[in-house]
Amino acid sequence: MAFDRLIENIIKKQNPTVAGLDPKLDYVPASVKEACFAQYGKTLEGAAAALLAFNKAIIDEIYDIVPAIKPQAAYYEMYGWQGVKALAETIAYAKSKGMFVITDGKRNDIGTTMEAYAAAHLGTTDVAGEGIDAFGADALTVNGYLGTDGIKPLLSICQQKDKGIFVLVKTSNPSSGELQDLQLINGASVYEQMGKMCENWGTELMGKYGYSGVGAVVGATYPEQLAEMRQKAPHTFFLVPGYGAQGGGANDAKNAFDKNGLGAIINSSRGIMCAWKKQGLTEDDFAAAARNEAIRMKEDILSVVGEIKA
Amino acid sequence: MAFDRLIENIIKKQNPTVAGLDPKLDYVPASVKEACFAQYGKTLEGAAAALLAFNKAIIDEIYDIVPAIKPQAAYYEMYGWQGVKALAETIAYAKSKGMFVITDGKRNDIGTTMEAYAAAHLGTTDVAGEGIDAFGADALTVNGYLGTDGIKPLLSICQQKDKGIFVLVKTSNPSSGELQDLQLINGASVYEQMGKMCENWGTELMGKYGYSGVGAVVGATYPEQLAEMRQKAPHTFFLVPGYGAQGGGANDAKNAFDKNGLGAIINSSRGIMCAWKKQGLTEDDFAAAARNEAIRMKEDILSVVGEIKA
Repeated sequence: MAFDRLIENIIKKQNPTVAGLDPKLDYVPASVKEACFAQYGKTLEGAAAALLAFNKAIIDEIYDIVPAIKPQAAYYEMYGWQGVKALAETIAYAKSKGMFVITDGKRNDIGTTMEAYAAAHLGTTDVAGEGIDAFGADALTVNGYLGTDGIKPLLSICQQKDKGIFVLVKTSNPSSGELQDLQLINGASVYEQMGKMCENWGTELMGKYGYSGVGAVVGATYPEQLAEMRQKAPHTFFLVPGYGAQGGGANDAKNAFDKNGLGAIINSSRGIMCAWKKQGLTEDDFAAAARNEAIRMKEDILSVVGEIKA
Repeated sequence: MAFDRLIENIIKKQNPTVAGLDPKLDYVPASVKEACFAQYGKTLEGAAAALLAFNKAIIDEIYDIVPAIKPQAAYYEMYGWQGVKALAETIAYAKSKGMFVITDGKRNDIGTTMEAYAAAHLGTTDVAGEGIDAFGADALTVNGYLGTDGIKPLLSICQQKDKGIFVLVKTSNPSSGELQDLQLINGASVYEQMGKMCENWGTELMGKYGYSGVGAVVGATYPEQLAEMRQKAPHTFFLVPGYGAQGGGANDAKNAFDKNGLGAIINSSRGIMCAWKKQGLTEDDFAAAARNEAIRMKEDILSVVGEIKA
């Protein structure tokens, strides 16, 4: 199952973190932008070329120490189909460097339509009898509001192609509780109910380290709920946003892990991409700064988690 | 507010329906596919060209009688960035014909990321000081699981640019009740709670026909809940999937409307796109068949709704 590959990458690198690649043009140094605008004009194509150059430079600096990247689809869609092409190219580049790729798309729909999203992001698309990878990520974030038949098409693809999904359970944003924290008459909260659904969906996709191919998104900004869900969803691997720019620290994030230091991967996006600002470096040093921050973050997390072992 | 424009289009055409453009390559006639493959190869580019030709032919046949189209993002993403380019071109083409375009993307994320989705689909993207339309739809479907700060960035764009959103409330699929129907201790169901949130989010975006720019997705396959929500969310305009291929009929859909025949738009996707199959026509007649079905559907809905008036 897909998270076995991720887990092995985490153990090998002793690093349970993922670099979020959510590039805005503002984050890209002027020198890179100017070169791209000179070639493609001040267009979406030029912007997308700048994002791709930015991403590749960061990947080049971190692929040997960070097990995974998480590109956020929104930041690519913002630059049109040209940006979406940069997403596909970022995914392919990171995979060529041995990284595990989680596309953060939070996709959701009814069954027949979810088949299309599953093919798009994790599977293959049939064109005249040939299966083509449209985006080819290793995992996709999804929203389970529509229930089982919006998740099932993903499970088949996960099984066939050794991929995984992360279902939103308790998100990291300030207003996540408005719906997710409401209490149901069955005694659970909405997010807890979603966690139960993840455990159920995962039963057919159990991996060798005790975690299924159905993971959950649980924010580091809610450490109590993170500890609660770690206990209540013991076979569900967590993708944990909210560390760094959103305010979560290592002591918050540690609640996501089991006693072996497994069970979770902690994301940092702006912290990695904009690291040069905190390091007294110039914007042209963004990639080296990203590596410094990736090392600092890894050490910060490991200081509370200890050695990661199977 | 955006739904005023949609409502005026509905009244003018006396047609409260929207054509879902969710094209799969299987739906496209062999003659169209072969021409595209001859030009671009059996590639994602060739497939995307076929989808675009298919969409344009349908739009050409229906734009004078149908007020809106709803392209479903998943079916374009399935064909890679090339498919996403066909989505952008479909949106632009429908708008050039005066149609209202609802991108069905069910997007959702935390606030900072939702700003990117809002810019991508409804607003403009800044490239070196110039605002460029990345996709430029009139409305976007979204998922409210993350609460207010995942919706707020959309509201600003809706206000500035006269656009709208449809939030998933009670979806049309068989398993929608697994989470959405659960009872909260406050006495509401989860979907009812989401409907309340839509009413609240819409208060700042009220239009002249009594509906705000924050609509809701409520399925025709659950007519009782549709009637319930029509009453409980009186300022929320409904996008109603589930008519036709999914099993909902005009008598189910009628619960979505107010006494003036306003308040909702009913979607049909496969019913329109694959209409030739039910009309004893050949696949090459798909566009004419789509027009026949659009007229039949309009008459079917109007037979229970009556004249639509402001």
